[in-house]
Amino acid sequence: MSTHPSALIVHAHPEPASFTAAQARVAQESLEAQGYTVEFVDLYAQHWAPVLDRTEFPPFEGYFKPQQEQWDAVREGTLAADVRADLDAVIRADLLVLSFPLWWFSLPAILKGWMDRVFAMGSVWGGDAGIFENATLAGRRAVLLATTGGSAESFSKEGAYGHIDDFLFHINRGMLEFVGYDALRPIITHAPARADDVQREQALRDVRQAFGTLDARPLAATSRTLAH
Amino acid sequence: MSTHPSALIVHAHPEPASFTAAQARVAQESLEAQGYTVEFVDLYAQHWAPVLDRTEFPPFEGYFKPQQEQWDAVREGTLAADVRADLDAVIRADLLVLSFPLWWFSLPAILKGWMDRVFAMGSVWGGDAGIFENATLAGRRAVLLATTGGSAESFSKEGAYGHIDDFLFHINRGMLEFVGYDALRPIITHAPARADDVQREQALRDVRQAFGTLDARPLAATSRTLAH
Repeated sequence: MSTHPSALIVHAHPEPASFTAAQARVAQESLEAQGYTVEFVDLYAQHWAPVLDRTEFPPFEGYFKPQQEQWDAVREGTLAADVRADLDAVIRADLLVLSFPLWWFSLPAILKGWMDRVFAMGSVWGGDAGIFENATLAGRRAVLLATTGGSAESFSKEGAYGHIDDFLFHINRGMLEFVGYDALRPIITHAPARADDVQREQALRDVRQAFGTLDARPLAATSRTLAH
Repeated sequence: MSTHPSALIVHAHPEPASFTAAQARVAQESLEAQGYTVEFVDLYAQHWAPVLDRTEFPPFEGYFKPQQEQWDAVREGTLAADVRADLDAVIRADLLVLSFPLWWFSLPAILKGWMDRVFAMGSVWGGDAGIFENATLAGRRAVLLATTGGSAESFSKEGAYGHIDDFLFHINRGMLEFVGYDALRPIITHAPARADDVQREQALRDVRQAFGTLDARPLAATSRTLAH
């Protein structure tokens, strides 16, 4: 962490007045109050194009191998402008925050597509870099900031759905840790749609508190201890 | 399963000549040879629009609450035409096959967005239906047909990444089982990009064998046994 830390918040919710959006603004305020320089990418507002296909690369003959094209584009400086801009923002940031509502126990498609396109092979992983502790972003931190439809109880080990950590494993392990981040324990508000105004205000205070104490926040539970 | 079973294959790969696409065609051939009527949805070929937002619903004032709008649209018959068509295909099918390359340990964005939009609240879950065993598609079967970049070893419990079942949990439990399906053990070819022609032919025979023996295929490992 530099003396002038920086953060990138990548936010994906279609409703600007949503609780999820309010959470993201609180996160930004808390980080700025601590001296962070914060960049905020609002994927819905930017109409981010999430579908990785051959049209974003310079014309070529033959099969489309997405990772090969990404690696070539990184080396040759031909990444699409929207990808290059957000990749540069990722590389500038000491802290990455992914802000989203949990849709189908995962990222909304627009945010999944941001990962598919921006986390290009040869940039934040692979190519001359490695994966996990050898990847480009090793030593930096990332945290999920999410809302859910279901209650905390439904996301417990014996709950109706299953443990939230099991659902988020593919993101914390497969996306954040894969490119080198220390993935912090997710910051989650459960079922804000069923909360009253007092409860929502408390939830926003909890989010502010969480971002005010990131240095003490434990890592996400991504140890691979599922008994097969 | 009716005497004239039907299947829906939803396929998401940007390269028609990919091994992933070859897998999907083998699945279709195997199912048709068994008497299935097979519908094939090629999301990239259809330029499927994966971003759920308010513009797909009739104009309305105020906040956009995605699930509420979906539920209203189901009841009022105002779902977008592309969503309605694929939802009808889902409802017609005894078996759902999701065919994709594992990108970031999850679905490509175009397929994630198909879930976000087509699995509308009030249709295959929620509203008058429930979730899991009370959801609309209870008693039907679904299976993931995927390719990976990493080897089988890297996707083992002690491997470099973690167990494949842990990564696929969010799909098998959170998407397929959530809407009622019996999720079968995934059919996966590891690292076809690094295989030679003989190995790829064998892998396609393995896929054909798997689809020829679906009735004997065990359920996906989605028991929630992660030790927290």
